[in-house]
Amino acid sequence: QEVAKLLELKAQLGDGPPQKFTLKCPKGTRDFDSQQMAIRDAVFKKIVECFKRHGAETIDTPVFELKEVLTGKYGEDSKLIYDMADQGGEILSLRYDLTVPFARYLAMNKISNIKRYHIAKVYRRDNPSLARGRFREFFQCDFDIAGQYDPMLPDAECVKIVSEILSSLDLGDYTIKLNHRQLLDGIFQVCGVSEGKFRCICSAVDKLDKSPWVDVRTEMIDEKGLDAEVADRIGEFVRLSGGPELVEKLKRDERVSKNKRFMSGLEDMELLLKYCDLYGVLDKVSFDLSLARGLDYYTGVIYEAILSGAVQKDLSSTDEPGGVGSIAGGGRYDELVGMFDSKNRKVPCVGVSIGIERIYAIIEAKVNASKVKQRTTETEVYVAAAQKNLHEERLALCNILWGANIKTEHSYKRSPKLLAQLQYCEERQIPLAILIGESELKQNIVKVRNVVTREEVEVPREKMVDEIRRLLGEIQDKPSGKVI
Amino acid sequence: QEVAKLLELKAQLGDGPPQKFTLKCPKGTRDFDSQQMAIRDAVFKKIVECFKRHGAETIDTPVFELKEVLTGKYGEDSKLIYDMADQGGEILSLRYDLTVPFARYLAMNKISNIKRYHIAKVYRRDNPSLARGRFREFFQCDFDIAGQYDPMLPDAECVKIVSEILSSLDLGDYTIKLNHRQLLDGIFQVCGVSEGKFRCICSAVDKLDKSPWVDVRTEMIDEKGLDAEVADRIGEFVRLSGGPELVEKLKRDERVSKNKRFMSGLEDMELLLKYCDLYGVLDKVSFDLSLARGLDYYTGVIYEAILSGAVQKDLSSTDEPGGVGSIAGGGRYDELVGMFDSKNRKVPCVGVSIGIERIYAIIEAKVNASKVKQRTTETEVYVAAAQKNLHEERLALCNILWGANIKTEHSYKRSPKLLAQLQYCEERQIPLAILIGESELKQNIVKVRNVVTREEVEVPREKMVDEIRRLLGEIQDKPSGKVI
Repeated sequence: QEVAKLLELKAQLGDGPPQKFTLKCPKGTRDFDSQQMAIRDAVFKKIVECFKRHGAETIDTPVFELKEVLTGKYGEDSKLIYDMADQGGEILSLRYDLTVPFARYLAMNKISNIKRYHIAKVYRRDNPSLARGRFREFFQCDFDIAGQYDPMLPDAECVKIVSEILSSLDLGDYTIKLNHRQLLDGIFQVCGVSEGKFRCICSAVDKLDKSPWVDVRTEMIDEKGLDAEVADRIGEFVRLSGGPELVEKLKRDERVSKNKRFMSGLEDMELLLKYCDLYGVLDKVSFDLSLARGLDYYTGVIYEAILSGAVQKDLSSTDEPGGVGSIAGGGRYDELVGMFDSKNRKVPCVGVSIGIERIYAIIEAKVNASKVKQRTTETEVYVAAAQKNLHEERLALCNILWGANIKTEHSYKRSPKLLAQLQYCEERQIPLAILIGESELKQNIVKVRNVVTREEVEVPREKMVDEIRRLLGEIQDKPSGKVI
Repeated sequence: QEVAKLLELKAQLGDGPPQKFTLKCPKGTRDFDSQQMAIRDAVFKKIVECFKRHGAETIDTPVFELKEVLTGKYGEDSKLIYDMADQGGEILSLRYDLTVPFARYLAMNKISNIKRYHIAKVYRRDNPSLARGRFREFFQCDFDIAGQYDPMLPDAECVKIVSEILSSLDLGDYTIKLNHRQLLDGIFQVCGVSEGKFRCICSAVDKLDKSPWVDVRTEMIDEKGLDAEVADRIGEFVRLSGGPELVEKLKRDERVSKNKRFMSGLEDMELLLKYCDLYGVLDKVSFDLSLARGLDYYTGVIYEAILSGAVQKDLSSTDEPGGVGSIAGGGRYDELVGMFDSKNRKVPCVGVSIGIERIYAIIEAKVNASKVKQRTTETEVYVAAAQKNLHEERLALCNILWGANIKTEHSYKRSPKLLAQLQYCEERQIPLAILIGESELKQNIVKVRNVVTREEVEVPREKMVDEIRRLLGEIQDKPSGKVI
């Protein structure tokens, strides 16, 4: 046993292979195999297409930031930040989201106008529920518009983008809840909440998507110290939801119609709903006074998309901040960039974060359930030999095909069995195979085989590339059973 | 002054904005702005196209690994590994390259066959020379073939891939140096080097690309303790380079022709050169006995591409391991996966790493020199209004265009100036603009303007989408002055 220990120690010191320890990914992280990557790339592609359709550019920032950049931005969640070891240099932390690095980027480069997307990994030392698609390393997928513009024009485009993405990914029915921080603040004001308690009452309201009003009321009274009367007055408002008619109703509500904040928020909401109508998404949105959003930095419109279809049921997580089935969220944050600017120069921003991990989990489940195998490569042609020792001929044919920009593979064995080669094509869903044997070589032809139909045609070698292009064109025109 | 200190402290505690400290990226890291991202994405796209043309799939691994996974893999470079803070959980480090995580992935999942690429950031606490395109956070771009195959078939494809990528990126002339670890070991053996010194003599040889033989000889004798005679014998070999004729010459060389290792390596090299010929890249390769490669884990063929054209001069870095202008490198490593396997089960691998950061730096310099502005968005149409308060009309038009999958932008101001809108189109190289005014609205038409030629046509609203598609088709057919 002592010998074993010593050997282990030796292995750990790296003096000699093999090392023996449990191989695993760090807690809360995972590898993506090629099948998962194919799905992930397809999801990203659709989302990026939407961002580009709206004229966005992209930027990138380092995976870690100076710790002080992140300090004081996330409230009590700051404890979840991953710190790097202090090795006598700068104190660094892994990024917790993409919004704070974006704000740092704008302030540092004195940028006052940009429309950008950013898809990248962020890090949180959470206790993740992996089964529910929550990880310590996960992707965020953000779209933001920074700049001093007229009310609700950028905000409405963010809502439109959420709608386009959720529709294009075919995730089933969804609703985009809309609210406004100034409406909430106005309500708290007229109901008699002291200014200092606004944010903590806000986070109590935020729980209404998963707790009944009676529980939230209790929290407000017992934990947050509101009078029962004040809580009840709040309750009358935050349980309201609807469309443009709710705006009209609130306009005439004398309790709030004299509150400046509330009416300013209501004006925004009226405009936002009108723009949503022009963008054809009014039936997808719901003006919902219970929506509050967790983050402190929001200053105006807030929104959150939830799936209402059956598909989200299996994956819904009631412990998730943001609520059951929340799949995208965002809002306006006009003060964050100013926090990084030495002159507190403000850059108004509005943005949306697509819940890419949850979307990925839903689509992965759909792909797995469909039993349609997602291709992990794009190989178009496999060069196979029917006899031994034709590897040099195969190399020469591959070289021609690669030169013609045709995606081509062949076996790395000198004399692979024909059956093994054809099975590889079928497993990998490679549409075409080139077959050669002594007889084909003598005649200076190749056989081109459709892997699915098993039809074969003989083609003179100099016409091989043209024939393959023609056949690939035919195959691509057929409808596929693709899930994504 | 004390007040200032207290305020700074307060800001750091996050009690209130704004925070005042020097805004910067961590040492050795950088942001990519949208212009840089456009170039980066274009470079990645070309490289990924090549990998896909060769039938590769992709995987992803976490940005950090259990520290013990990395331990003992990088020799003295281990000091450059970024460790995470120990917060009472696992001990983690940021990945140093993509090869060790790949080997961990293969061993963990008991995968014995895969052809995969992986483009991702890696981390080294080096003292980087930023001007020379060296960073602490940088991309690696790896292609590897794992599996038990016949000699040189996967190896030759890696060389072919390097050649295709370097040619497609139009970086000027290049040479891919080829060598074989067993040839070097055989030479050391017949020259009288003791087995234990093979690796350190190997790393002395590796310096021949930037130091003259006389300096390397001195290092061998003074630092590595070789006899002068032994060093001189080595020198006769490692200064040889050439093509297939060098193989023939060495076959007849009695000093090495009886050495088993050497002759086994030479057999491989003969085959590799033959395959390179079949792949049409013989004129791009050079069999070079001075090539040694830094990493310990190579066991067979090694290769390294260098730029020989003028373009690399400005960016060459003599302090770079891998040599002046080295732009891709790799080799065969048959033992690494076994180091992670409890039964020391081996998975032979061969791979190549494309020096993406250096390639990026060269192309960025070319783009900047060309004064052709790289587009950062793909916007096809800009919806502009000639009069005030037509924003709702613009929203409706944008909605139609997005619905037709046409990349469209408009101003987020209610009443932007026409000139400002047209200038935006020109700056952003948006090819088409839709113009509306009261008169167009009355006639139910729009004006479609070619932004470059300033030609305008009037189109009925219901034909707008068709006309735009037609015009975009025309514009795309024209040659562009694009650098990448």
